Amino acid sequence: MLTVQEALLTLQRFWTERGCLVVQPINTEAGAGTMNPATVMRVLGPEPWRVAYVEPSVRPDDSRYGENPNRLQTHTQFQVILKPDPGNPQELYLESLAALGIDLDAHDVRFVEDNWQQPAIGAWGLGWEVWLDGMEVTQFTYFQQVVGQNLQPVSVELTYGIERIMMALQGVSHFKDMEYAPGISYGEVFAQNEFEMSRYYLDEADVPTNRDLFEQYTTEAQRMIEARLPVPAWTYVLKSSHAFNVLDSRGAVSTTERARSFSLMRRLAREAGALWTERRQELGFPLLKGEGPEMITGQAVMPPSEGEAVEPHATSDEPQLFALEIGCEELPPHVIGQAIEQVRAAITAGLADSRLTYGEVSVFGTPRRIVATVAEVSAHEPDGEVLRKGPKVAAAYDADGNPTKAAQGFARGQQTAVEDLVRAEFDGAEHVAVRIAQPGRSVLEVLGAIVQDTVTALRADKNMRWSDPELAYSRPIRWLVALWGSDLVPARVSELGTGHTTYVQRTDPHALVTVTSATDLLKVLRDKGIEIDPTVRRESVVRQAQELAASVGGTVDVEAESGLVDEITGLVEQPHGILGSFEERYLQLPQQILTTVMRKHQRYLPVRSADGALMPHFVTMANGDCDDAVVRAGNESVLRARYEDAAFFYDADLQRPLTELRAGIDTLTFEERLGSMGDRATRIKDVARALANQVDLGSADRETLIRAGELAKFDLSSQMVVELSSLAGVMAKEYAARAGEPAEVADALWEMELPRSAGDDLPQSTPGALLALADRFDLLASMFAIGAKPTGSSDPFALRRAALGVASILRSQESVAGVTVPAGLAAAGDRLRAQGVDVSDESLSAAAEFVASRFAQQLRDEGVSADLVSAVAPLAASPGTAQRALGDIDRLRGDADFPALIQAVQRIVRIVPEGTDSAYDRGRLTEDAEVRLADAVDALPDHSRDGLPEWAADARGLVEPLNTFFDQVLVMAEDPQVRAARLGLLQTVVDRAPKGVDWKALDSALA
Amino acid sequence: MLTVQEALLTLQRFWTERGCLVVQPINTEAGAGTMNPATVMRVLGPEPWRVAYVEPSVRPDDSRYGENPNRLQTHTQFQVILKPDPGNPQELYLESLAALGIDLDAHDVRFVEDNWQQPAIGAWGLGWEVWLDGMEVTQFTYFQQVVGQNLQPVSVELTYGIERIMMALQGVSHFKDMEYAPGISYGEVFAQNEFEMSRYYLDEADVPTNRDLFEQYTTEAQRMIEARLPVPAWTYVLKSSHAFNVLDSRGAVSTTERARSFSLMRRLAREAGALWTERRQELGFPLLKGEGPEMITGQAVMPPSEGEAVEPHATSDEPQLFALEIGCEELPPHVIGQAIEQVRAAITAGLADSRLTYGEVSVFGTPRRIVATVAEVSAHEPDGEVLRKGPKVAAAYDADGNPTKAAQGFARGQQTAVEDLVRAEFDGAEHVAVRIAQPGRSVLEVLGAIVQDTVTALRADKNMRWSDPELAYSRPIRWLVALWGSDLVPARVSELGTGHTTYVQRTDPHALVTVTSATDLLKVLRDKGIEIDPTVRRESVVRQAQELAASVGGTVDVEAESGLVDEITGLVEQPHGILGSFEERYLQLPQQILTTVMRKHQRYLPVRSADGALMPHFVTMANGDCDDAVVRAGNESVLRARYEDAAFFYDADLQRPLTELRAGIDTLTFEERLGSMGDRATRIKDVARALANQVDLGSADRETLIRAGELAKFDLSSQMVVELSSLAGVMAKEYAARAGEPAEVADALWEMELPRSAGDDLPQSTPGALLALADRFDLLASMFAIGAKPTGSSDPFALRRAALGVASILRSQESVAGVTVPAGLAAAGDRLRAQGVDVSDESLSAAAEFVASRFAQQLRDEGVSADLVSAVAPLAASPGTAQRALGDIDRLRGDADFPALIQAVQRIVRIVPEGTDSAYDRGRLTEDAEVRLADAVDALPDHSRDGLPEWAADARGLVEPLNTFFDQVLVMAEDPQVRAARLGLLQTVVDRAPKGVDWKALDSALA
Repeated sequence: MLTVQEALLTLQRFWTERGCLVVQPINTEAGAGTMNPATVMRVLGPEPWRVAYVEPSVRPDDSRYGENPNRLQTHTQFQVILKPDPGNPQELYLESLAALGIDLDAHDVRFVEDNWQQPAIGAWGLGWEVWLDGMEVTQFTYFQQVVGQNLQPVSVELTYGIERIMMALQGVSHFKDMEYAPGISYGEVFAQNEFEMSRYYLDEADVPTNRDLFEQYTTEAQRMIEARLPVPAWTYVLKSSHAFNVLDSRGAVSTTERARSFSLMRRLAREAGALWTERRQELGFPLLKGEGPEMITGQAVMPPSEGEAVEPHATSDEPQLFALEIGCEELPPHVIGQAIEQVRAAITAGLADSRLTYGEVSVFGTPRRIVATVAEVSAHEPDGEVLRKGPKVAAAYDADGNPTKAAQGFARGQQTAVEDLVRAEFDGAEHVAVRIAQPGRSVLEVLGAIVQDTVTALRADKNMRWSDPELAYSRPIRWLVALWGSDLVPARVSELGTGHTTYVQRTDPHALVTVTSATDLLKVLRDKGIEIDPTVRRESVVRQAQELAASVGGTVDVEAESGLVDEITGLVEQPHGILGSFEERYLQLPQQILTTVMRKHQRYLPVRSADGALMPHFVTMANGDCDDAVVRAGNESVLRARYEDAAFFYDADLQRPLTELRAGIDTLTFEERLGSMGDRATRIKDVARALANQVDLGSADRETLIRAGELAKFDLSSQMVVELSSLAGVMAKEYAARAGEPAEVADALWEMELPRSAGDDLPQSTPGALLALADRFDLLASMFAIGAKPTGSSDPFALRRAALGVASILRSQESVAGVTVPAGLAAAGDRLRAQGVDVSDESLSAAAEFVASRFAQQLRDEGVSADLVSAVAPLAASPGTAQRALGDIDRLRGDADFPALIQAVQRIVRIVPEGTDSAYDRGRLTEDAEVRLADAVDALPDHSRDGLPEWAADARGLVEPLNTFFDQVLVMAEDPQVRAARLGLLQTVVDRAPKGVDWKALDSALA
Repeated sequence: MLTVQEALLTLQRFWTERGCLVVQPINTEAGAGTMNPATVMRVLGPEPWRVAYVEPSVRPDDSRYGENPNRLQTHTQFQVILKPDPGNPQELYLESLAALGIDLDAHDVRFVEDNWQQPAIGAWGLGWEVWLDGMEVTQFTYFQQVVGQNLQPVSVELTYGIERIMMALQGVSHFKDMEYAPGISYGEVFAQNEFEMSRYYLDEADVPTNRDLFEQYTTEAQRMIEARLPVPAWTYVLKSSHAFNVLDSRGAVSTTERARSFSLMRRLAREAGALWTERRQELGFPLLKGEGPEMITGQAVMPPSEGEAVEPHATSDEPQLFALEIGCEELPPHVIGQAIEQVRAAITAGLADSRLTYGEVSVFGTPRRIVATVAEVSAHEPDGEVLRKGPKVAAAYDADGNPTKAAQGFARGQQTAVEDLVRAEFDGAEHVAVRIAQPGRSVLEVLGAIVQDTVTALRADKNMRWSDPELAYSRPIRWLVALWGSDLVPARVSELGTGHTTYVQRTDPHALVTVTSATDLLKVLRDKGIEIDPTVRRESVVRQAQELAASVGGTVDVEAESGLVDEITGLVEQPHGILGSFEERYLQLPQQILTTVMRKHQRYLPVRSADGALMPHFVTMANGDCDDAVVRAGNESVLRARYEDAAFFYDADLQRPLTELRAGIDTLTFEERLGSMGDRATRIKDVARALANQVDLGSADRETLIRAGELAKFDLSSQMVVELSSLAGVMAKEYAARAGEPAEVADALWEMELPRSAGDDLPQSTPGALLALADRFDLLASMFAIGAKPTGSSDPFALRRAALGVASILRSQESVAGVTVPAGLAAAGDRLRAQGVDVSDESLSAAAEFVASRFAQQLRDEGVSADLVSAVAPLAASPGTAQRALGDIDRLRGDADFPALIQAVQRIVRIVPEGTDSAYDRGRLTEDAEVRLADAVDALPDHSRDGLPEWAADARGLVEPLNTFFDQVLVMAEDPQVRAARLGLLQTVVDRAPKGVDWKALDSALA
C-alpha cells in the first residue's frame, strides 16, 4: 500500500524529474501552499520558476479535535508552480497521478470548473477542482492576478490535497486510519497535535494576546515595506494572517473588524508584492539570465502545427464539408453554449462576407472542444469588383467639366488615370469612384481568415491568459483542426496553428489521432465515443439516469433537476452513468441536507421512488469508460463521508435544547458596536412585534410570531449551520419541529431567512414575513446608523440583498403590505436606540432611499421600462402598492382611452404650478369648455386613495372635455381670478386621481 | 553532480528505507532540527520513534547578508532520530554518506568528541562532530537528557549540515555557488532571502516589538502549560526563543536579561516536556502498543555473542596468553589513557585476588578499543582453603570448655559439626573458625569474572547510556573479544557477550574479522594497520609530521605542540599523515589567528621554518588509508574557508578607525542597569587612573595608561572578535599597532584582558596591570552593587574568574602591589556612583570578602596548607603582601629558631586579652625573668611595618627570655598594676612584630 510519506516522496521525485525545485514549507504558519513566498512572490514578474513542495497548511477554523474524519486544522498540501505555463500542465498532472499508482483507465478523473480567488491577498485565477471519482483531490489554477498584479507570464498552480487523495487510495474513512509510514498510522503521528492545536484554536487561545500580535505583526510588516524589504514584510503578513485566523476561530472577529483587517492585509500584501517585483527588477531579474532552471516539460501535447508550411491551394474544385475543431482544456458548462453561439455567429458572418457558396452551418460542443461544420463550401470565390468612393461629382469636376484637383488627387492616390474614374451613387449622393477588381479567393484562404477571426474573438464572461502571448479565453485553447474536405485550412492564431491532429479522451492509448478529412474528424470523434452534440448528450444523460434509476425501481425527476442535468451535460464528453448507493440510515437526515450535498457538492442526480421520496441511490455521470466498480466505490465513499459529517452534526445538534442553541448565538460576535448575534436576534423579535401592530394579525399568528421571535436564528450556533451555512433557516425549521415546536413556528423560522437570493422563495405566512422584514430592517437601520453602508463593490453585510428582500416581501405578501419601508426602518431605529445605539434620522432616511433605489433596480432588472419605474417611484415606500400600480398599468395599457387619459393628466401637471389649491370659484368659469369640464369633474368621485383601474373607469369621461378645454381655453387668463379658478379646476382633476404616480413618467412610458 | 535537493531527497529515501518516518519542518522559526517537537518531545518517555526530516534552521546571529561564504541565517539541517539506539547508528550513518555518493575509502571520516548541550532547553548528550576531511559535516549525539528529563531509552540524533556537506561534495567555496537543482544555484534560490532576513535581523527588527513578542509568547506558553496542552505550549516556547534570538542579533540583550530569559525558557521547556510525558502516559503510550513503526535496522555490527553457549573448560593445561579487547565507539582522546589505567588496575587486582599464576600485564588503547594482554596465565588455580571467622574463643566456650550457644549457632550456620571448629587468630584475637575448601577454578572462569568486573567498572568523567540496559560509559561499548590462548573466555556484561570477532577499520572490506587466539588478535590488528600502543602511535604521529614538514623544508615544534600531539594520537587508530598547504597571503594575518584555527578548530600541526616563522603548510593526521589527494584537498578547502573568513573580517576591521570601533561598543548592551559596554570601558579607564594615584607611575606609563584607557575594549565591536571571541585583546593589540598606536599602548590593551583563565599569562606592564585591575574591580563592584553575585553553579558574569584575576595580578606585579582590594573596589564604587548607580558600602565589603575567599581558594589550590592560608588571611586585602609573607615563611621555616619564635608569640597572643595597651609601667617589673625580657624587648626595633625575615632576625633573641618569663612568672599577678605591666610588656612584643599574620594559624602551620 502506498503510504502517505511515500506519496509525498513520489511527488517530489516526480516533479524534480520535470524540472521543479523542491523547497521546504515556509517556517511560519500559513493557511495554504500559495502563501509560501516560493509561490506568492515568485509568480510575480517575468522570471521563470518551477517549484514543488509540501506545505502543512494551518486553518484554525478547521479545528475539530481530530474527531471529524475529514477535517484537520493542519492538512498537507503538495504545491506545484509551473511558470510559465508549460503548455501541457493537465497532462503532466495526470502523469503525476499515475506516478502515485492511480490507474487513470479505471478511475473517473474530471476537471470541474473552479474560479479561485483569495481576496485577502488580491489574487484570482481560473481553473478546476480535479475530481477523482467525485472527490476533490487537487486545485488546479491558472493564476491571473496575485497581490493585485496581473501576471505575465501566467503560472500554473497545482495544489494536491494529500489527506484526501491518500484516504481515497488507501480506502479508509478516517484520516487517522491512513498508513502514514509502514506500520504507523497518520493518527499515531499527528492525532495528539490535532487535538491539542484544536483545543488551542477553538478554546484556549488568548484573544487579547492574539489581537496584540495582529497589531504588532502588521506594524512590523509596514515597517519592512518602508525599509524596502519584501521578504520579512511578507513573513509578517503571514504571521498577521495567522493571528487573524486564530481570532476568527475563537469567534472573536466581528464583521467590521474582518473587513478592516482584510483591507489592511490586502494592502500590505499588495505593497510587499510590488516591492518584491521592484527589487527583482533592480537585481536585473536574475533568473532571466544564464541558463535558468532546466525545464523538462515532458512531451508536448500536440505535434508542431502544420499550418504554416501549407500553401492555401485547394486540391478539389468541388464543394466540400468544412470542419473546425477548437480544442480546449475543460470549459465550464455554461461557457460551452456561449461558445457554440459565438462560433456559429462568427462563421456565419465570415461566410456571408465572402463570395463562397455554402450549406448548413452546425456547431456543437463539449467541455474540451467546439466543433463547427459547414456543408458544401465551394472551392473558390467568383471574381468580383468593388467601387471605391472618391469626391462628390460636384467637387470632382469644375463648371467646365474638367477634373478638379480633388479628382486628380483621388485618382493619383488610387493609382489610376483620372479619365478612368466612374460615377456612382453612395448614400444617395453621386461621387466619382474607382473600380477595383476583386479576384476570387481560394476557399482555404477565406476559411483560414474565418478560423482566425473566430478563434481570436472567442470570449467568455470571465477570461484568462495562459502561455499564449495574445489569446484570452475562459480556459486555454490548445489545438485547432480545420479541414475543408481533406485539405488543411492553414491558419495561425497567435501561437496556435491548424493541423490534422485531434485529441480524444486523455486516457485513450492513442489520444492523439490524425484525421484525414473533415468527415473523418467527425467519424473519429464518434468512434472514440465522444458525443459532440449537446442535445444528444443531454438525452444520453437523461436516458442513462432513468435506466439506472429504474434498475432499483426509482426514477430521476429530470424536470426538477433540469439545471443540474444541463450542468452534467457540460461536464462530460462521453456520459457514462453509474448508479451509486448510500446507507439507508442517512435517509433519516432532512432531505434538504441530502439533496444539497448531492446536487451542489457532487453533481449527483437524486433517485426517487414513485411517491417522490428519496431513495438511497444516486446517479453520477463519469466521463467515458472506466471501471464502474472502482468509480462507484469512490463516489459512494465521498458521499458517505459527507453524510457521515452531516449525521454527526445533526445528532450532536439534536442533543442540545433549543434554548441552549439560542443562548449559543450570544457568543457569536455580530458587529462590535451592535453586540452579538443574540442581541440582533432579540432586536428582530421586538421589531417584528412592532411591525405586527401595523398589520392585521390573528391571535394564532401573533402567538407564532412571539414564539418564533424568541427562537430567531438559534440555528446559527448549531454545528450543521456552522459547517454548511447555506442551511441556515432550513435547520432552524428542522430542529424546531424535532423539538416539538408547532409547525407554524418552525415554518416561520425558515421563512424569516427568505429570500436568500434573487428569485428565491418568499415567506408565505404573515409571521414569517414579519420576521423576515424585521431581520432586514434591523440590518439596514443598524448598518446605516454606524455608517457601514455599501460602497462600490464592497457590501460585506449584504445590504443590497437585504433591501431587495424587503422589496420582494412587501411586493408579494398582501398581508404585510400595510408595512411601509420608512415605518419599518423607524421601528428598527427605535429598537436600536433602546439598546443605546446612536441612530440619526438622516441615516434612516438614507436607508429608506437605499431600499427605494434597490427596488427600482429590481424592477428594471425584471424588464420594467425606466419610465414606468420612474412613474411608480413615489410609491417606493410601499413596494406592494407600487407593484399593484404596475399591474394596473399593465392591464390598462391595452385600453385605448387610458393613454389619452394619462396624457391629459400629464398636460395638467405640466401647466399647473406645484402647490396650486384645488378649491376654485365655480362662478368664474363661464366658457363652454370649462363649464363642461367642471361638470365632468364634479361627477368624478375622489379616487385619490384608490387604484388606477377604479379611477380610470370613472375618469375616462374626462378625456374629451379636458382636450376640448385645452383647445379652447387659455388657462393662464389675464384675469387672475379666472386663472385661479381654471387652475383650481385642473388641480381637482389631479387631486381626485390616485396618489403616488409620476404622471409625467407614466406618460412617457405609455408613449 | 549531486545537487542539494537531490541530496535531501536521497537522505529522505535512505532513512525511510531504514524505518524512519519523514515529517515536515516545524512551521515556526526554529534554531535547529532538535527544536522540532518531532525530536524534542518524541525522545521523551518510553515510546519508540524513528524520524528523518529537513529543518531549515534560523539563527539570526549568523546573518551575514549572504556575503560570508559559509554563514547563513537560515541553514539546512537534515535531522534523524533513532529511538531506541539501534546498536549500529555509526554504521547506518556511514551508509547514508555512501548513499550520497561519498567514497568512504577515499575520504577521511572521523568521529571527533563533542559533548553537546543546550542549556536553554535543559538538554545534553555525548557524541561526536563527524569530520569529513577536516570539515564538520554532522553532529552525532546520544541524547542523555532533554528538557531536564533523563532519557530511557536513549535516542541517537544525527544532524547533517547540508550546506557544508554539499559545498564539500560540489567543491565550491561559496554557498551561493552550489548547484541547488539542475541549472539553478543555491544563490539564485535563496540569496535574496539571506540578504533581506539578514537586514531584518541585524538592522531593522524593532526591538520594543520583539521584546513585547517575547513577553506574549512566554505568557501564552505558560497559559498552555496550565491548560495541560504541551503542543501549543512548545510552539510558544519556540516562538519566544526566536524572538529572543532576534533581540540578541540586534545586540539588545544584556547579560542579566539573557540569564533571566534563559531561565524562563528553560523552565517553560521543562514544564512543557514534563506535561508531554504525562499526557503520553495518560494516553497509554500509544506507540508502545500495536505493531509500532517497522524498524529496519540494517545489519547488526556484530554476530550474536558466542559467550553464552560455551562451557568454561580450558582446552590446555599450559599457561597461555590472555587478551581482552573492549570495542567502543570513538572514545575522546583524554578518556583513552584513563581507560587503559582502569583496565590495568582491574585486571591486576582481579588476578591478584585469584590463585592463578601470570606474567606481565600490558594495556593499550585507541579511540575504538582498549586491548589488554596478560602473559602466561596458568590454566587452573590450585585448590585452597579459607578460614571463616566465628565468635571469639572466649565466647565460644564456657568455663567448662563446652561450646556455647554462640559456637553452636555458628557451626550450624556453616553446616558443620561444632567439634570440627578450629581456632585461629583474626586481628590479634583468637576466634573459632571453619575451614572452607576452595577448589581451584578454571582459568576461563576466573578470567570471565575479571572481564565482567573490568568492563562493568569502566567509568569516565562524563558517562552516558546507550541501548544497553545497564552499562554506562564515555561512549558505547559494542563488542568484547576475550581469549585465553585459543579458548574463548566466556563472559557476559549486561547484553554484551565475549566472542571471537574483532572489528577493524570500518572502511575495510572485511571489517569484521574472526580471530583464532589471543596472539592472533594482536596479529590481526597489526596486520590491519591498527597501532594499539599509544606510545608507538605517538611516535608515528611525530615521525610522520616531521617527515612531511621536512619535505617542504620546515619542522613541527612537537615540544610546543605536545598537548595537541597527544590529542591527535587519541583521535586515530592508524595515523596517516598528510601535508596540506594554504595560500601564502594568509600568512599576513596575525599568527595567533592562524594557529588558533589550526590547533583548536582543526587539530592541524602548524609547520614552521628554521627561524620559527609559520610556513603556509600544516600536517593533518588521517585515520588510516585514504586517497591523499582527496583528503588533502578537503582539508585545505576547510582551512581556506576559515582563513578566508578571518581575512574578510580582518580587512573589514582594518578599514575602520579605532575611534569608530570604540564608538561601536557604545551600542553593545552590557547590563541594563549599568549601561553599554562603552560605558563600562569608560569606567575602566577612569578607575585605572584613580588606581594609578595609589602606585608610583612614571610619566611614560601614565601616557600609555591614558591612551590605552581611551581605547579600552574597542575590539569588541570588531568583526573578528564578534566571530572569535577568544581573540578579544589579541585583536585590540593587533589593530592598535596597525593603526600606529605606540607599542606600549597596544600591549596594555592586550594585557588588560589577562589573565583569561587560571594559569594564563599575567600583565607585565604597569599600565596593563592597572587596566586589568580596573576592569575586574569595575565588574565586581558593579555586579555586587546590583545584587548579581554568583550563586551556586551560576556565575554568568564570571565574577569568580575576575576575583582570581585580581589576586593573581596583585600577587605577581610588584609595581601595583600598593593597590589593595578594598581601595580598588572603592575607586570602582565611586566611579559607578558618579554614573548614578546605587552602590552600598555593604556591597563593596561583600565584594572584597568574595575576592579574599577566592584568593584563599587559589592558595589552597596551589597546595598551600589550610593553616598557612589562614595565617595570611588577614593580608588578603593585599594579596601581594600575603604572597611575600608566604614566601618569607617558606624560607624561614628551615630556620630552627623561627618556629620557636612563632610559638612564643602565639603563647603571648593566647594569654593577652585582645585590646590590651602596650604601654606599661616598667617600674612594676621586678622579677629577673621579666626584667630580662623587658630589656630584650626594649632592644627590639619596631618591625610592625616590615617583613617577617627582618623581624625574625632581630626577634629571635626574644625566644629564650620569653620562654623563661613564661616558666617563672605568673602573668596574671594578683596585683593589678603588676599584671597590667606584664601584659603591656607582652603586648609590646606583638606590636613590634609584622602586622597581618594570624600567629595562631601560623603556629599550627609550622607544627
